[in-house]
Amino acid sequence: MQLKRPKIAVLTSGGDAPGMNAAIRAITLACHSSGYSCIGFFHGYNGLIDDEWCELTPRLVNPTLQQGGTLLKSARCKAMLTSDGVKQAANTLYKHDIDALIVVGGDGSFRGMLELEKEWRGQLIGLPGTIDNDLAHCDATIGFATAVQTAASAIDKIRDTANAFERVFIVEVMGRHSGHIAFAVGLATGAEAILSFENCQPPQHDAILSELTTAITQQQQVRHGSYLIVCAENLWPGGASALQKALKERAAIDSAVCILGHIQRGGSPVVNDRLLASKLGLAAVEAVEQQQHMVMLGEIAGNVVATALNATVQDHKPVASFWLKAHRSALKGDLA
Amino acid sequence: MQLKRPKIAVLTSGGDAPGMNAAIRAITLACHSSGYSCIGFFHGYNGLIDDEWCELTPRLVNPTLQQGGTLLKSARCKAMLTSDGVKQAANTLYKHDIDALIVVGGDGSFRGMLELEKEWRGQLIGLPGTIDNDLAHCDATIGFATAVQTAASAIDKIRDTANAFERVFIVEVMGRHSGHIAFAVGLATGAEAILSFENCQPPQHDAILSELTTAITQQQQVRHGSYLIVCAENLWPGGASALQKALKERAAIDSAVCILGHIQRGGSPVVNDRLLASKLGLAAVEAVEQQQHMVMLGEIAGNVVATALNATVQDHKPVASFWLKAHRSALKGDLA
Amino acid sequence: MQLKRPKIAVLTSGGDAPGMNAAIRAITLACHSSGYSCIGFFHGYNGLIDDEWCELTPRLVNPTLQQGGTLLKSARCKAMLTSDGVKQAANTLYKHDIDALIVVGGDGSFRGMLELEKEWRGQLIGLPGTIDNDLAHCDATIGFATAVQTAASAIDKIRDTANAFERVFIVEVMGRHSGHIAFAVGLATGAEAILSFENCQPPQHDAILSELTTAITQQQQVRHGSYLIVCAENLWPGGASALQKALKERAAIDSAVCILGHIQRGGSPVVNDRLLASKLGLAAVEAVEQQQHMVMLGEIAGNVVATALNATVQDHKPVASFWLKAHRSALKGDLA
Amino acid sequence: MQLKRPKIAVLTSGGDAPGMNAAIRAITLACHSSGYSCIGFFHGYNGLIDDEWCELTPRLVNPTLQQGGTLLKSARCKAMLTSDGVKQAANTLYKHDIDALIVVGGDGSFRGMLELEKEWRGQLIGLPGTIDNDLAHCDATIGFATAVQTAASAIDKIRDTANAFERVFIVEVMGRHSGHIAFAVGLATGAEAILSFENCQPPQHDAILSELTTAITQQQQVRHGSYLIVCAENLWPGGASALQKALKERAAIDSAVCILGHIQRGGSPVVNDRLLASKLGLAAVEAVEQQQHMVMLGEIAGNVVATALNATVQDHKPVASFWLKAHRSALKGDLA
Repeated sequence: MQLKRPKIAVLTSGGDAPGMNAAIRAITLACHSSGYSCIGFFHGYNGLIDDEWCELTPRLVNPTLQQGGTLLKSARCKAMLTSDGVKQAANTLYKHDIDALIVVGGDGSFRGMLELEKEWRGQLIGLPGTIDNDLAHCDATIGFATAVQTAASAIDKIRDTANAFERVFIVEVMGRHSGHIAFAVGLATGAEAILSFENCQPPQHDAILSELTTAITQQQQVRHGSYLIVCAENLWPGGASALQKALKERAAIDSAVCILGHIQRGGSPVVNDRLLASKLGLAAVEAVEQQQHMVMLGEIAGNVVATALNATVQDHKPVASFWLKAHRSALKGDLA
Repeated sequence: MQLKRPKIAVLTSGGDAPGMNAAIRAITLACHSSGYSCIGFFHGYNGLIDDEWCELTPRLVNPTLQQGGTLLKSARCKAMLTSDGVKQAANTLYKHDIDALIVVGGDGSFRGMLELEKEWRGQLIGLPGTIDNDLAHCDATIGFATAVQTAASAIDKIRDTANAFERVFIVEVMGRHSGHIAFAVGLATGAEAILSFENCQPPQHDAILSELTTAITQQQQVRHGSYLIVCAENLWPGGASALQKALKERAAIDSAVCILGHIQRGGSPVVNDRLLASKLGLAAVEAVEQQQHMVMLGEIAGNVVATALNATVQDHKPVASFWLKAHRSALKGDLA
Repeated sequence: MQLKRPKIAVLTSGGDAPGMNAAIRAITLACHSSGYSCIGFFHGYNGLIDDEWCELTPRLVNPTLQQGGTLLKSARCKAMLTSDGVKQAANTLYKHDIDALIVVGGDGSFRGMLELEKEWRGQLIGLPGTIDNDLAHCDATIGFATAVQTAASAIDKIRDTANAFERVFIVEVMGRHSGHIAFAVGLATGAEAILSFENCQPPQHDAILSELTTAITQQQQVRHGSYLIVCAENLWPGGASALQKALKERAAIDSAVCILGHIQRGGSPVVNDRLLASKLGLAAVEAVEQQQHMVMLGEIAGNVVATALNATVQDHKPVASFWLKAHRSALKGDLA
Repeated sequence: MQLKRPKIAVLTSGGDAPGMNAAIRAITLACHSSGYSCIGFFHGYNGLIDDEWCELTPRLVNPTLQQGGTLLKSARCKAMLTSDGVKQAANTLYKHDIDALIVVGGDGSFRGMLELEKEWRGQLIGLPGTIDNDLAHCDATIGFATAVQTAASAIDKIRDTANAFERVFIVEVMGRHSGHIAFAVGLATGAEAILSFENCQPPQHDAILSELTTAITQQQQVRHGSYLIVCAENLWPGGASALQKALKERAAIDSAVCILGHIQRGGSPVVNDRLLASKLGLAAVEAVEQQQHMVMLGEIAGNVVATALNATVQDHKPVASFWLKAHRSALKGDLA
């Protein structure tokens, strides 16, 4: 029996992440290599609702390999939270005679696929694309490596001025509700403190302020110099500025605040994101050929692994315990 | 008559700026080339108050040419606002038998020199070191080129995600009370709007909101895409977040805010700052030889020009009118 | 009398330089701002020979502001060395009813304009675009600042490994037949030796080898560490590898060679190149309005200055003597 | 029974790699955290021969986390190829009462440990430090990620100028006798051809020239544009220049050559190298505590794995077959 030659559609959804273009390019080249047709919908699921799309060709996608953002644009889509919206999306896919839809995005985007599956009978393949690295069943999400590199390079600069002034800095990094960025960045920049969900739970805030105060005071005695606190967003009630205020009121410690913000989303993807996105993009087209459905493809220990979409939405990916230990050990060694 | 071989001291004061190390290095090498002695005081004028210093040698300064921050540390110094403090500083200079003090800093640092001159009879030479470029009588201050490059590179990244989401962004840049950074960065990144002291005075805030609203709406009709507002710090009452809120309340325009902050102070100096600082550092030692006193050395049209310190403190350096015109022209062309 | 509304054409010619896109963009926006028509010819003068062109619109040019290369492509064009080719080019300009042609390029490109003027009666305006900075009557050419920054960043990396191995490195930089890049890069990276046309003439090669040998030996006695020689391309007969061989044979000095090559041509333009190109692009459209003809527009001391094209082709721009002096002084101080 | 508190020594050996400083820092901090003594020998094994060393303290190592090169310097050491040299090295270790020696380097450095083991009874632990990634039993060597990022960023720049001129470029990358760098860089930059040991064996050179000629010609028909060949060093007899010449003679194809060279060794380590080096550095001190000996610690699938040193010297690490397949697929898709 001969397999029908698929027509494949792609969209990028949710917060954009560096490397999404590399994924789109790999999917496009793999489709052309296999003689498949390939189109892209714009603005995440909104492109399905509004029937906004373009044909994806090598000429279009090749120059985007090294570019940040996503040529298909991204967006969150409220319509997908309604059954009318989901039906509308399914209709557009039927209208274009799409065999498989590949969605690059985070857990919200995958939830959209769970809904879409109720209304549409084509194949659905997800690729993990978010800077936050908060998707289980993959070692890293597309965009994480670049976000971490951008944040670390920014903090290297902040360290220069912090050293010049021998100053305490609180740097807030992204990560939504996980500490992957905070720990990777904090360890890579030698941050004196990393405050994240994994080592700093809400009821402990008072204890944390005490620890910070003791550590900063102790360091000032051991050696002068800067003291860098990397803080995950959404961690401290009121954000980094509230922490700054608490340090001042509690212990008369002056500090400066930097919220790195959206620079962490953009920029040319680093090599690791380009390679990861290329690998998963190629694998996604292979997965379509292999009749896979309702799975996310992630890289684990160098291999592409398919996991049921609902597992990726439910499961939590913890920060490797090694990093928490490494952070404690580094601090202890520094003050020894 | 033979000139006495001078003993020269250096300090970096006020907000640190990339290139300060290059200036210290050039002064040190020029001193060694001429057989002079050279020492550095730490933490700005505090090093004079507290007698904290080190000998400056080629071996120490050479590796710092490409490093941000300042090996002599920097600080603001409240003691220099008191006559006791100034006397203390003068005593330290007498104690070390210093012939000339070279200060790298901004207008606050130069005011310290005006005070010091009353109590100390050595030569005083200032070099313009501040990222804000708000010192008259020089084309650019040491640090400005790097700050502008760092901010522009950050905004290039923000543009990626702004494009992906077709979103309005308000990016706040440094500059204290001048728009040099805002205009250079805004023009270099193709910002759709630049809000700075030069084109946006306090009483006009209401008019500005109207203009912004019109322009954003108009652009959405001409073409989709991102809309980037570069806003000078200290300009909008309440800062970028207040502007964000005003846009939302006034015109239901959603926007995101990024405050670039201290990343603009750090990082390896760009070539222009290394060359400028090297040039002025060498010139400072020559100026000492030529018995100059109470001047700031700045580069104007490629030449080193000496200006009386009190003039540098009083005079205002406007943003070149060409840039205001260029910005208006670019906007008009974009929407034509 | 009413001025005819011009139709303006642009081309980029000769070696491409970062910032050419920014110039094309500024010309395009200025044209749209004034209601002019604006088209671009591809591949330098070849686009005139072959009638290959595109309309230039804000939507097309805006995203290129921060991109290296040139959207209009560039090339050298042999046909322009023949009278038939020049006539063909003129015919294309007549056919499109072009009023003014703006050429961004180096002295070879300007020579093409001198020929074209014999056959075509429209206005001709040149903008200095070459990484080599070897055009007189302007402080810097478009592309120079980026090339220098790229080369300096590369040499900063080489310094790391040179330090680790305490090794002599010969780094060859671009510049055609001038030392602007060599001196800017060498001084910005603290190179121990800069070999360029300005301080190293062909008959002196033997003397230079002696000096190098003495200096390297002397440094090894004063302090261990790396020794970095920045060498202009086209300077040493046989290039950097021949110099390496000569050092080995003459004085048993081992060294490593790096030829930076074409990385110096590419990359996102630095802020200075974006601003310079934007300024000159806007000024070029103004110059058309002012009926200027057969001039190059360059920035001198912050002002846009028009110079007759034949002067730009004939005159030589020397490296500022300050830099030669600075280099000698730094070396003397380092070994003092 | 109480374990004796070890005195640990570190050295970096062979070609230096970004991240070596991060490894030294992690070892130092872990030692201080555990109350061990920690010293470093300079210039690889030469420091053992010549008894050149320094104490490693947090104050010394902390600022080097983000710096390229190695504060302990590196070198190759001929004396370790003689039995007298090895005995001398052992004597120095006895003299300093060293319990464990940690060597960061490549296979040559590990061979030195195999020799040293014959003469010295302390513990020997190796960490994989080389940009070439040519050590088996670890996913990546320290320095590989940075080298690949630097090379890819350089090639992104070359692509700009290659596009502007629609030109064929041959870019030679490092890697000694393996294609890890060539494949990672080639895939990450969308190179049209990757020539490496894995897909291009010596006897096939003639066939390769034919394939290249066909592919370049074919691409020129499908689309204009640049054609980028990434070529591993030591692959083509005579190097990239010989390949350039062969393309010209064989098929009249003009091309430009860039040899990226030593820029690939230097520069601030990327986050992945900082994290990998920190992890392995901490693990090395743990391994000492656990009485491990004659092993290399590598990261495999996120875990630290110890492998017998002689296995690491003998075994070959192939480039993942996925990448060869990905490269073929991308090319096929591009030309489809």
